Amino acid sequence: MNDFLFSRRRFLKNSSKTAAGLALTASLPKSSIALLGHKPKIKFSVIGINHSHIYGMVDAVIRGGGELASFYAKEPELAAAFSKRYPQAKLGREQKEILEDRSTQLILSSGIPVERAPVGIEAMQHGKDFLVDKPGITTPEQLAIVRRVQKETGRMYTIFIERLESKTILKAGALIKAGAIGKVIQTMGTGPHRINPSSRPEWFFDKKYFGGIITDLGSHQFDQFLYFTGSAKAVIVSSQVGNIHHPQYPAFEDFGDVMLRGDQGTGYFRVDWFTPDGLKSWGDGRMTILGTDGYIELRKTIDIGGREGGNHLFLVNQEETRYINCNNEPLPFSESFVSDVINRTETAIKQEECFLAAELALKAQAKAQELRLGK
Amino acid sequence: MNDFLFSRRRFLKNSSKTAAGLALTASLPKSSIALLGHKPKIKFSVIGINHSHIYGMVDAVIRGGGELASFYAKEPELAAAFSKRYPQAKLGREQKEILEDRSTQLILSSGIPVERAPVGIEAMQHGKDFLVDKPGITTPEQLAIVRRVQKETGRMYTIFIERLESKTILKAGALIKAGAIGKVIQTMGTGPHRINPSSRPEWFFDKKYFGGIITDLGSHQFDQFLYFTGSAKAVIVSSQVGNIHHPQYPAFEDFGDVMLRGDQGTGYFRVDWFTPDGLKSWGDGRMTILGTDGYIELRKTIDIGGREGGNHLFLVNQEETRYINCNNEPLPFSESFVSDVINRTETAIKQEECFLAAELALKAQAKAQELRLGK
Repeated sequence: MNDFLFSRRRFLKNSSKTAAGLALTASLPKSSIALLGHKPKIKFSVIGINHSHIYGMVDAVIRGGGELASFYAKEPELAAAFSKRYPQAKLGREQKEILEDRSTQLILSSGIPVERAPVGIEAMQHGKDFLVDKPGITTPEQLAIVRRVQKETGRMYTIFIERLESKTILKAGALIKAGAIGKVIQTMGTGPHRINPSSRPEWFFDKKYFGGIITDLGSHQFDQFLYFTGSAKAVIVSSQVGNIHHPQYPAFEDFGDVMLRGDQGTGYFRVDWFTPDGLKSWGDGRMTILGTDGYIELRKTIDIGGREGGNHLFLVNQEETRYINCNNEPLPFSESFVSDVINRTETAIKQEECFLAAELALKAQAKAQELRLGK
Repeated sequence: MNDFLFSRRRFLKNSSKTAAGLALTASLPKSSIALLGHKPKIKFSVIGINHSHIYGMVDAVIRGGGELASFYAKEPELAAAFSKRYPQAKLGREQKEILEDRSTQLILSSGIPVERAPVGIEAMQHGKDFLVDKPGITTPEQLAIVRRVQKETGRMYTIFIERLESKTILKAGALIKAGAIGKVIQTMGTGPHRINPSSRPEWFFDKKYFGGIITDLGSHQFDQFLYFTGSAKAVIVSSQVGNIHHPQYPAFEDFGDVMLRGDQGTGYFRVDWFTPDGLKSWGDGRMTILGTDGYIELRKTIDIGGREGGNHLFLVNQEETRYINCNNEPLPFSESFVSDVINRTETAIKQEECFLAAELALKAQAKAQELRLGK
């Protein structure tokens, strides 16, 4: 027995420089490989940093083995803050310089929402993949061009949606795939957000810049609906938007909701800007997935009056009621996305999933009835 | 100081037989007055006991000071069980005998749903008030006749809806009235139920008897929507029903959902028969009320993976996040309803609220699109 163990250790030790060793190395996380000085590794740039989401996006790509080479922002004060955080990144003099840098494979953007797709289209036309903050596309016209150019160039146009950075959503997906709640019937989500008006730039309050509340906050919800139900197509049953309580910002929308129906399930969600100050989170986002044999409730950021922190999952099925804290679940986005850039695969998220979620959001936004209460 | 206390006790003792004493008695619960041998007290009967809800209804009216005189049921086995529980109640030979008993003021019914309104119409025409299990009206034609006869006779046609027996809903209503979450924008409810097929009679599985899932389970939801938003009128934005997972009962509906819009708020709800066996309750009913300055979440029957028991209320507003256990909140229905019968008032629930909630349910049911998944 001891002999066997000894032999096995010797084999592993010796094989690290052999073919078997290479196979082992390939199964390591990409970031470990980067640390070993090996390829694969990519270089990337940033264009547009108007929303602070960009920091999380950049960090995610760095974690996956990316090297931030350069960035461009037309706002000097935003550029200064970004430079301070990432001194390694060269500030380009103009957008063109970033696009034409042949050393990079990928461009990230969190510009003003309406300006994101034009950057992405140019990025793809310059042979680069594109990772964009949500909403990644704010008009049906943008979507049509993005779809066409993506097809022509074969580049990735990936929208950095909540699912990609949520251990809780991915854990729920894995449980559902394993049959924990039977066949999914319906998803029901809420996406409330705190408005923090004093911290917001002017474009935040005018839907011509962000595409409306369903396009913006709803984008996560469509993605999760498709992901959990497994639907490949869907119709908007009905949708509403409103500016209920912010008359000082007439072009703003503070409420939206949507009922939709896919080929594999139905869904409803509400998004809003009404998170009150007494909540210890920016928003009490929930998702309930109803199946034929159980349901899952996600309390994504907070469990009001309950457990500390976020990433709470509650599973109720024919056998049990179980609480699962998802803080230690894996979050493979960084490595799988960088690997997709290198290997031209779609392991992080499928291109068509990005487009379909965006398309549904734009349709629901376009057909939304305006909500007027107490009038 | 002691002298003062002594004097005060003497005053209270002496005043119990004076005008001041009468005023004190008037503030006591009605049931206490009944125990003292005082009026007000009413006599009532029961016609139709097909759903066990009837026991809760009878007990509620007895608690309020009612005396159960007699009942009629066409099913001998149901009648036997009822007689055992209420030996004081005389079993009538036919429905007519109960209707024509001039000693009673009120008739209760939990017959097969489609047969309830015809009983109620006859009850009102015989000069009696009517308290009926939900759904109290299963077709638009029934509603039209019930409305007309109620107007002609001036009798009460009260549907015994969840709100009337829920401390949690009433506490939320009181908090909202006191301004705890600002102006209500939206309600979002779920009403899942356990199907328990082996315990159900045949009529349970055929919507021609119960009017469809929105008419049946949804009736509570419309009432709560009107109650919390304060809407006096509403339109159905969209509605869906389906038989997703019970092909062995082709005339059954196991899923329904509705989006609706009132003059003072909007709402969404889902009802279903998918409560899994691993839940320690018949259904994890929730209600979230979103306001301009906060929100309230009700976990009506269970707090999954959390606190014991039911009646949980979570309040989040601009000041705080607060948990309120509503088990010790008042539940005035019994006394206010019996008082309404005697005094011709509408303190328990307004007649038009009953009719409007039923009307909305029938409209949503009639216009519901049929949900077919995975086909």
